[in-house]
Amino acid sequence: MIDDTIAAIATAPGEAGISIIRISGSKAIDILDSIFKTKKEASIRDFSQRRLVYGHIVDREKNKILDEVLAVYMKAPYTYTKEDTVEINCHGGIVPTRNILELVLRKGARMADPGEFTKRAFLNGRIDLAQAEAVIDLIKAKTNKGFDVALSQLEGSISRNIKDIRDIILQTLAHLHVSIDYTEEDIEEITYPQLLSNMEIVKEKIKRLLDTSETGKIIREGLNTVIIGKPNVGKSSLLNALLKESRAIVTDIPGTTRDVIEENLSIRGIPLKIVDTAGIRDTDDIVERMGVERSKEFFNKADLVILVLDASEDLTKEDNEIIELINDRRAIVLLNKTDLPQRVKKEDLQKLLPNKKIIQISILQEKGLNEIEEEIVKMVYGGHIKEMDISFVTNVRHKNSLERAAKSIEEGLEAVKQELPYDLIEVDIKDCYDALGEITGDTVDDNIIDKIFANFCLGK
Amino acid sequence: MIDDTIAAIATAPGEAGISIIRISGSKAIDILDSIFKTKKEASIRDFSQRRLVYGHIVDREKNKILDEVLAVYMKAPYTYTKEDTVEINCHGGIVPTRNILELVLRKGARMADPGEFTKRAFLNGRIDLAQAEAVIDLIKAKTNKGFDVALSQLEGSISRNIKDIRDIILQTLAHLHVSIDYTEEDIEEITYPQLLSNMEIVKEKIKRLLDTSETGKIIREGLNTVIIGKPNVGKSSLLNALLKESRAIVTDIPGTTRDVIEENLSIRGIPLKIVDTAGIRDTDDIVERMGVERSKEFFNKADLVILVLDASEDLTKEDNEIIELINDRRAIVLLNKTDLPQRVKKEDLQKLLPNKKIIQISILQEKGLNEIEEEIVKMVYGGHIKEMDISFVTNVRHKNSLERAAKSIEEGLEAVKQELPYDLIEVDIKDCYDALGEITGDTVDDNIIDKIFANFCLGK
Repeated sequence: MIDDTIAAIATAPGEAGISIIRISGSKAIDILDSIFKTKKEASIRDFSQRRLVYGHIVDREKNKILDEVLAVYMKAPYTYTKEDTVEINCHGGIVPTRNILELVLRKGARMADPGEFTKRAFLNGRIDLAQAEAVIDLIKAKTNKGFDVALSQLEGSISRNIKDIRDIILQTLAHLHVSIDYTEEDIEEITYPQLLSNMEIVKEKIKRLLDTSETGKIIREGLNTVIIGKPNVGKSSLLNALLKESRAIVTDIPGTTRDVIEENLSIRGIPLKIVDTAGIRDTDDIVERMGVERSKEFFNKADLVILVLDASEDLTKEDNEIIELINDRRAIVLLNKTDLPQRVKKEDLQKLLPNKKIIQISILQEKGLNEIEEEIVKMVYGGHIKEMDISFVTNVRHKNSLERAAKSIEEGLEAVKQELPYDLIEVDIKDCYDALGEITGDTVDDNIIDKIFANFCLGK
Repeated sequence: MIDDTIAAIATAPGEAGISIIRISGSKAIDILDSIFKTKKEASIRDFSQRRLVYGHIVDREKNKILDEVLAVYMKAPYTYTKEDTVEINCHGGIVPTRNILELVLRKGARMADPGEFTKRAFLNGRIDLAQAEAVIDLIKAKTNKGFDVALSQLEGSISRNIKDIRDIILQTLAHLHVSIDYTEEDIEEITYPQLLSNMEIVKEKIKRLLDTSETGKIIREGLNTVIIGKPNVGKSSLLNALLKESRAIVTDIPGTTRDVIEENLSIRGIPLKIVDTAGIRDTDDIVERMGVERSKEFFNKADLVILVLDASEDLTKEDNEIIELINDRRAIVLLNKTDLPQRVKKEDLQKLLPNKKIIQISILQEKGLNEIEEEIVKMVYGGHIKEMDISFVTNVRHKNSLERAAKSIEEGLEAVKQELPYDLIEVDIKDCYDALGEITGDTVDDNIIDKIFANFCLGK
């Protein structure tokens, strides 16, 4: 039983028209009552719930008005957390927002952990774990596609799929159980062919979900992309061209891009987390070297590497070293500055990189950008580019659980084919059932739950 | 008559639990009705006003759910703008917030200008201009003091003062008018001593307000402070010590502080906008030079200059150049690194800077910081340090109007003393009356109003 009351700022920090302080728990309404004052000195309880009431937040001990606000209370259980909930809409400045939160904490609320409101919605049974995870995906979505998938997950698309599969497993398990325990009685035992059939259905359904997970991951997290190349080949300009606005400093001094710049952009609906790195090269400048170190880190974990080369100059030792780096990576090679007399030929380069797509571009003349975008789309959707609107598995945690479920059911199938004893098969099926239950939170331990909600933003 | 409907995002941008889209105007409720869908397909009008109603925002043309939300409508005239107002609380992500706003605009609202909601509150007569200006000060306040003064202004502290003075003037003007127009009739004419007495009261009241304006401006806008000194004397460390947290990069490489870093901090309730500049020195590095250029710009407009010198090394030509720069500025000189053997003596330095406060400090050993803070407080409150809680004139526009009002009333007083004709005196008094009216917006033209609201944030 959760019995403390939590509070946090539910809106983004910054100067704005409105900020919201949210309170949830059994003391939420009492706390509001103790700090809220209407013109006619009415209690907030004199108003009906869910009604926005105008008044002031007052620190009665210090006899001080903290702000003029609209306040509302909502009674359990029909709230986000299924607990009594209060929202105070104050002026969107740092001072009133912070002061009101501090007063609320002084009145007995505890500062909410990141995601704790949603965690309570889960713990109180309003949503399952996959739905709770969808909430943060909704908020962090960078593209419409990412948002739509998260919203459908919040509305239960993953959960329903998992529940369907688990229902089939549960029936099978029940039948299996009876077959094991009551062998003497007059009950129709489950047969190996029946088991095989049910488990094949389960296997197929899990596979279908898993098939969506690679694209799903990109939809959710973005394609980690890194732009590399020696200084001055046009990396920042490329990023700017892709962003169609200029955020990175572009100058002619090699090594100007000191720090790693991450930008989020959407290429035909695919979110890219794209990193423009300091030129990968040796340097004695400490600040710059830190940038280079971080570049390498980004390079190593990137899903996609975009190598930019200068077509107007012969390849240097540096270029060749970088070319070697990408040989076994998912990469696109751009031959830039094709507006100038060309010293590097595409054919020659292709010989060095036989399996890589090489695109000739001129960022200056805005040539070839389209081809880059098409190549990225092709990579992500793997050939069949048409918009897929089935429900995706976007979350790596879900994918891992599905993989374990798939492994268990396959082991079970193997056992069935060998007609091993029912109780051995039962173990595999139960493992599959549990692995799937982790996704919806039916079978998951507290540490994992804590870890999931720690990724949330404050106030949600 | 304002007859279009405006919309904007009222919360700060960023990922958060909740964003609010606000709509105001005659079509606000119709727009909500056309895009809002409850579970039971009820219309928002089926619910009472001011009630937060759960439902979905749907783009009915595309048959697409944009987000799950809480929506509320409030009927004119008891709203912020005195117009029908709608607020939609959606998930605080970029995608849903932007998509809902776009849909609202497509349904007939117009994107609100910055401050336009508050402008309407003013134009529709709910608040006067000084109160409207207090709204943005509330939001932008960096300290409790700044917020409290703005809140008291929103509640009418400046406005009441101005109204009091204008009432006195109006009575005087009325009496004067009668005395001019109906000289033949049996009406008691106003006498020069009466005029003198009334106008002295007005003058005194204006003066009292003006006296608060220097401190008031600092309370509102912060003391523009710049830290200067040659590289490596401890400027960044000083800023960090003042911030009591480390945000600027501190290293031992001269010129590391490439860009100008502005920090807002509060020293004993006084807001400081403090700038740590790239070392002022000649440089060939373009990026660094840009930083130095900006440093000079900040230096020139600073209210307070803090010069940091290294006590452990002889003064260089560079130091002497900088010392010369601050000779006629409001400045504090810090002799840092007094933990090392001292090569620069305070007495010698004082000879170079006879009118400047010189403080010996050691940032490393955290010595002397207290003295810096005391010196700043003394400068701002001009000797009498006790907390003043009278209502301050914080706004430069108000100050300028008060100065013009003061000038007019003094010219009028001069005319009275010379017993010049009443109609000449009347002109001065009327000018004073109008100048004061600019503060509350009773006598102010549209351009000025537009300019004032252009400084607001979007959505307020």
